[in-house]
Amino acid sequence: MACELAEIVKGRGALLFGEFTLSSGAKSSYYLDLRRLLGDARSFTAVSSMLAERSQALESYDVVVGVATAGIPWAAAVALLRGKGVAYVRSEAKGHGTASLVEGMPRGRCVIIDDVATTGSSIKRAAEALSGLCDVVGALVIVDREEGAKERLEREGIRLESVAKIGEIMKCLDISPR
Amino acid sequence: MACELAEIVKGRGALLFGEFTLSSGAKSSYYLDLRRLLGDARSFTAVSSMLAERSQALESYDVVVGVATAGIPWAAAVALLRGKGVAYVRSEAKGHGTASLVEGMPRGRCVIIDDVATTGSSIKRAAEALSGLCDVVGALVIVDREEGAKERLEREGIRLESVAKIGEIMKCLDISPR
Repeated sequence: MACELAEIVKGRGALLFGEFTLSSGAKSSYYLDLRRLLGDARSFTAVSSMLAERSQALESYDVVVGVATAGIPWAAAVALLRGKGVAYVRSEAKGHGTASLVEGMPRGRCVIIDDVATTGSSIKRAAEALSGLCDVVGALVIVDREEGAKERLEREGIRLESVAKIGEIMKCLDISPR
Repeated sequence: MACELAEIVKGRGALLFGEFTLSSGAKSSYYLDLRRLLGDARSFTAVSSMLAERSQALESYDVVVGVATAGIPWAAAVALLRGKGVAYVRSEAKGHGTASLVEGMPRGRCVIIDDVATTGSSIKRAAEALSGLCDVVGALVIVDREEGAKERLEREGIRLESVAKIGEIMKCLDISPR
C-alpha cells in the first residue's frame, strides 16, 4: 500500500522540498501537502479506500472524527465507506450560532482521522476535546512523518495507525533521507 | 425527499427554537444545526445520498467544493458517491506550511456545497475564491432557509439547488411559520 500511495503523492505534487514551518512551529526540509490528493477523483477514491482498509486494524468504532480542516474530508469518506457517522474537532470554537469545539455529536466509540501526524499534538488535542463525548479507540493518518507521534500518543493510550510512514514513501520514491 | 429529511432533522434535534445570531450577523428565531446529522451513521448516509441525487439537477462537474467547515464532510460524501474529487474553501488562509484559501487543487467544473444557505454570502465568497481555479456550475445545500440566497446567487450567475426549503421542512413537521 505504501508504494501505491507514494506514486499518488508524487503524481499530485504533494511532496515538496524546501524550507517549511509546520503547524507545531518546527522547521522542516520537506512538506507533505496531502490536501492536494483531494481534488483528483482517482486519488481521493484510492486513498479513501486505503484509509478505510487500514481503519480495520483498530478496534470497532461508531464514529469517525476528523481533525479540522484537513482531516474532515478523509473522515467523511471513511465513515461513508464503513457505514459510520462522522464528526469533527475545530481548531477553535466558533463565535456564532450554536458554538462548539466538537461538531456532529459523536457518541460511542470513535476513531480520530487526520491527514498527517508529526508530533501527534493535533490528535492529542482532538482526543482531549472528545473526552466525555466518545471513547477514542485509536487514531489513523495517511502518512506518519515519524517525528514522535506514535510514541507520544501511545503514552496517552491512543494507538496510531497510518497508511504509510514517511520513510516508506521516501524509499518507494528512491529519495534519500535528508 | 423534504419530509424524509424533516424527520431526520427532527430526530437528531437539529432544528432549534430560541434567539440566535447567524454567521451573517442577523438574528433568527430558529437555528438549523445540520452538523448534528453527521454523527449518526444512518442520518449521514441518508442525507449524503439525497445530496448526491440532488446534485444531478446541476450540470456535470469534476470536483465538489465544500465551504469550511460544515460543508466539507458533505462535499466529501457527494464526491465519493459520484466518483469526483473534493476540495474546500477555508474561512481564512492558514499561516503555516503552504498557505491557501482553497485546498485540494480543484480544476475543471465544480459545484459548491454547504449545509445551509441563508443570504448566500458564504457561497458567493467561495465562488469568488474559486475564480481562476475551476468553473462553478452551481451550488447545493441541504436546506435553503429562503432568506434571499437563491435570488442573490442567481444574480451572480450561480444556480442554487437544495434538498429541501425550510418552508417544506416546517410544513412536513406541521410547524407554523414564525
